[in-house]
Amino acid sequence: MNPAAAAKPRRRARAAPRAAKTPLTPETWIDAATEVLVDRGIDHVRVDILAGELKVTRGSFYWHFRDREDLLRRVLKAWGERATEQLTARLARAGTDAQAQLRDVISLPFRGRSAARGARIELAIRAWARRDEMARKTVDEADASRIAYHEEIFATLGFEAGESRSRAFLLYSYEVAESLLHRQGTPAQREERRGFVERLLQQALVR
Amino acid sequence: MNPAAAAKPRRRARAAPRAAKTPLTPETWIDAATEVLVDRGIDHVRVDILAGELKVTRGSFYWHFRDREDLLRRVLKAWGERATEQLTARLARAGTDAQAQLRDVISLPFRGRSAARGARIELAIRAWARRDEMARKTVDEADASRIAYHEEIFATLGFEAGESRSRAFLLYSYEVAESLLHRQGTPAQREERRGFVERLLQQALVR
Repeated sequence: MNPAAAAKPRRRARAAPRAAKTPLTPETWIDAATEVLVDRGIDHVRVDILAGELKVTRGSFYWHFRDREDLLRRVLKAWGERATEQLTARLARAGTDAQAQLRDVISLPFRGRSAARGARIELAIRAWARRDEMARKTVDEADASRIAYHEEIFATLGFEAGESRSRAFLLYSYEVAESLLHRQGTPAQREERRGFVERLLQQALVR
Repeated sequence: MNPAAAAKPRRRARAAPRAAKTPLTPETWIDAATEVLVDRGIDHVRVDILAGELKVTRGSFYWHFRDREDLLRRVLKAWGERATEQLTARLARAGTDAQAQLRDVISLPFRGRSAARGARIELAIRAWARRDEMARKTVDEADASRIAYHEEIFATLGFEAGESRSRAFLLYSYEVAESLLHRQGTPAQREERRGFVERLLQQALVR
């Protein structure tokens, strides 16, 4: 907690009942805001609703955030940082073997409950980005970084720059769609198309 | 207008000022609801807001719709029907030439302003579908019909059933992503990847 925040005019004089015992961290507010965003949409991410969910007064919010806009900015920042961290972890795990990297990204949409939760958060943020420039920018940057990572994999596999870029976009499209259209096809069909994508995208174009 | 609707208990006794002169059709309400859905999200699609936008009383709404749920159902129905009509028109236009059909669907995300508007509506409905089972069902059905149409193209091009299904999913993924990630890459790069997708997806798998 930042003691300087106590001087902020918007902070209420009376401390929140719960905040006095177990002070909430900014992360708690950010997580709660993300939950509400996913379950109910951005319009419901409001200080009064979050304070109610967390059973604290609205005043305790202003220990950590200037206003709602500040919270929203930090929700996006947290999501963007997580996206970058995941890319870095991916690189470290798969090492320098481009084939292993390729298999790793192709299997991404199939990674069980944590992938499903990540996909739900991402969809909620994409929905928000349709109507908000700040969210739009965060999503665009995450997409661009991921596509660039895919591009490097194809470059390492020996494809020239333009083609690596096109392959990267097509593969990333598949990953996004697999998460967006997750009800299309049976599990066996999903597995079949995964194998197909892995093979087709490594094939050279016939001249 | 359906005169029987006048007997409905929810209709207000006093006629709307404007409805008396130029009665609104159900389509006007459905279009207005779709606009609000796109611009502000599903939570703002409410009878009072729409009546305000259309400058009529709330009462005139109940000439055409039982309640908000009824309106939402018909917004989805209208969108679903439009999606089906577009598929039928597509079939008629491209005829039986599978190559022409393939080029037609690949160029879909690039069809100027009407495509851009269609994409915005579709994204808004996908966002809504994340939290609403009725919307989810409509989107799933539209996706399934379109994927089936793509599948037929590949079957006509001579690919066997399983592979046609996988190719259809990958091509449809590309179309969805081209619309969702429309800010990724320059116009030249988008054109390059379009040509790439058209070629790669017609190539046989190397055994």
